[in-house]
Amino acid sequence: MVSPPPIITLTTDFGVSDAYVGALKGVILSLNPAATIVDITHEVQPQQVVQGAFILGSASPYFPEGTIHLAVVDPGVGTERRGLVLATPRAVFVGPDNGLLSAALPDDARQAAPVPGQASPVSLPEGYRAVAITRGEYMRESVSSTFHGRDLFAPVAAHLSLGVAPEEFGEAVTFVLAFPPFRARRRPDGSLQGRVLHIDRFGNLVTDVCGEDLPTGDVQVEIGGRVLRGLRHTYAGAEGLTALIGSSGHLEIALPNGSAAASLGAHVGDPVVVMLA
Amino acid sequence: MVSPPPIITLTTDFGVSDAYVGALKGVILSLNPAATIVDITHEVQPQQVVQGAFILGSASPYFPEGTIHLAVVDPGVGTERRGLVLATPRAVFVGPDNGLLSAALPDDARQAAPVPGQASPVSLPEGYRAVAITRGEYMRESVSSTFHGRDLFAPVAAHLSLGVAPEEFGEAVTFVLAFPPFRARRRPDGSLQGRVLHIDRFGNLVTDVCGEDLPTGDVQVEIGGRVLRGLRHTYAGAEGLTALIGSSGHLEIALPNGSAAASLGAHVGDPVVVMLA
Amino acid sequence: MVSPPPIITLTTDFGVSDAYVGALKGVILSLNPAATIVDITHEVQPQQVVQGAFILGSASPYFPEGTIHLAVVDPGVGTERRGLVLATPRAVFVGPDNGLLSAALPDDARQAAPVPGQASPVSLPEGYRAVAITRGEYMRESVSSTFHGRDLFAPVAAHLSLGVAPEEFGEAVTFVLAFPPFRARRRPDGSLQGRVLHIDRFGNLVTDVCGEDLPTGDVQVEIGGRVLRGLRHTYAGAEGLTALIGSSGHLEIALPNGSAAASLGAHVGDPVVVMLA
Repeated sequence: MVSPPPIITLTTDFGVSDAYVGALKGVILSLNPAATIVDITHEVQPQQVVQGAFILGSASPYFPEGTIHLAVVDPGVGTERRGLVLATPRAVFVGPDNGLLSAALPDDARQAAPVPGQASPVSLPEGYRAVAITRGEYMRESVSSTFHGRDLFAPVAAHLSLGVAPEEFGEAVTFVLAFPPFRARRRPDGSLQGRVLHIDRFGNLVTDVCGEDLPTGDVQVEIGGRVLRGLRHTYAGAEGLTALIGSSGHLEIALPNGSAAASLGAHVGDPVVVMLA
Repeated sequence: MVSPPPIITLTTDFGVSDAYVGALKGVILSLNPAATIVDITHEVQPQQVVQGAFILGSASPYFPEGTIHLAVVDPGVGTERRGLVLATPRAVFVGPDNGLLSAALPDDARQAAPVPGQASPVSLPEGYRAVAITRGEYMRESVSSTFHGRDLFAPVAAHLSLGVAPEEFGEAVTFVLAFPPFRARRRPDGSLQGRVLHIDRFGNLVTDVCGEDLPTGDVQVEIGGRVLRGLRHTYAGAEGLTALIGSSGHLEIALPNGSAAASLGAHVGDPVVVMLA
Repeated sequence: MVSPPPIITLTTDFGVSDAYVGALKGVILSLNPAATIVDITHEVQPQQVVQGAFILGSASPYFPEGTIHLAVVDPGVGTERRGLVLATPRAVFVGPDNGLLSAALPDDARQAAPVPGQASPVSLPEGYRAVAITRGEYMRESVSSTFHGRDLFAPVAAHLSLGVAPEEFGEAVTFVLAFPPFRARRRPDGSLQGRVLHIDRFGNLVTDVCGEDLPTGDVQVEIGGRVLRGLRHTYAGAEGLTALIGSSGHLEIALPNGSAAASLGAHVGDPVVVMLA
């Protein structure tokens, strides 16, 4: 059997109305016409690096070993910010060194970043390695100062898919920028103080409260001045606002047949508290 | 020549801003990296099962024999509603048993469903077979109660693409839920009483009046308090609201260089009547 | 090594909420299941042929030699307007003869079109050839009068991908419709008088002023009653409205962390002037 083509996923804030995504795919296919390109999303809100990191982190674990994840949410394009190839035991990530690739790192490593929503240098754990992309022969001949997705990251991803080793693209680095774990902290009283990480297409509020961190016993959830008692297992059958552990393992607030976000007037970053009832 | 990879189409209400579509594709490619995945749409309105059935029914006939159509619009996820593999003489459909797979069935079989917009049990015609998905070895190890698209339907579609027979996934069933045919009924006076099925990107109103059911002779179309006389063959050249038989074989109301939906303030479900002029 | 499958790109105004794109892809895959289909965009504004030509022209140069570019923005579908196969030295374009395929032609050839925004006949330069599609055996059996994308252009693109020569699809033509070059003209005083060509997802105003046409020396940009002095190299670090040469080589007006379009209330077609400061 012919071995399947390598997979390159894309996570960007380019939208799908312009020529940007097409150009990027054209560059990849010009170098490796056999690559399988998979869109994760191009609808990260413009320049919202944290949101991009969250979505990449939510989707990437489901891809096969050896997948190349190309991510571009890059407000600092053309400045001194570095471009990275970050190889984990399972996959390879390519993108700007601005926190977007946080998703590639385990929570343990990200604990070193102190401030939520701010990317700070963290040390690479064992089994991980990263290089700062500097080798011009793996870039397009002319690199614009505003579109490294097309001119630098796409060619690097394509060359990776052709078998070039991560080390070939530049100098090894031992620190990369990352966001703190997307995980609510436990307070001394045992409650969890978290926040809304993401509002999905259905208006569900996805929080950073992880199901496995919940206190044992009946819980209540406080959000937007409302108190929701108990957790459900499904959206169906619920009446009104409902708290449940969603498919990502995070606490979600949902309004079946409606939008919890609209109903609560909620935004990303809003606080949520979970405690024993 | 190497035989082409099997095709899996996707029709969902997931949108393209979240990680859901990416996760689902990752699951498929983890099981069958050679699958060709084609998006039909992810923009079915949230939980609008009828709309999903209409779009799937409009696109699926154009795919090659043997295509696997994976569809997820699933407000009842996590409840007792069954998951289906439905094999037709041309293709295989995978998704919840809530009417979404109506498109797989011929109009004759769907006549048994009495109420427009409501899914009712209908008997499978000859040459069709269905199973209720129950075999855990074809699901992901841990099945969430809110995302069967990723944890159950995607793995089943991937295994189908690897050659697993539909019968392997569970128990044969003889009834499935379906909507009545998307086809206006003829009234005793020969006129057709139909409704708006879908409003497309151009603001065209796609109705359930089928071109082949039209009375012979000059017709007029009543919609939203307006009477349109005669049918045109093209959008171009028309002035004002225009009735024509569209590319799906259905009667459409269009406003060239504008939106018929906006002009008429029309909605899905609005009545339309066609009679001899 | 197995040679990679041929690439067919898609540029349309179909949107992604309806069954249209799915049907078109199904038709291609039914004829050539090994084709690699790549979406450039389906979000061209309905019937905005100029915008489609601009986006196709911005993305197509990045695809490998031999790529087939299928484009459908087609307000004249079903009328006498011709369907074209247009072969360039690098690629093959398929679509309506309404200016949409302008992007396939060099600026020199397009100079013969006198009126911006209006498609006029231009002569094909050496190395280019075109045929008007007439041969029924390469169309779907029944061709609707409203969806040539599915019934005519998609099958032609699929047959091209299978190796059928452009000449096989109909009669050679020597003139095709094209728009004037997307390139601001120099005025006698050396300044450039251009206009906004496109507003991208970030609210950047992409103009038809080409970087290589700029006068030598410090420049200023007049747009929407504002005067911007000097050009920057990156979006990052700018304060307020910023002019720079974007990744397409065109002058762009950007507002870092905001939308220049919203800030200026700007629209496609708005005038822009660049002169020495």
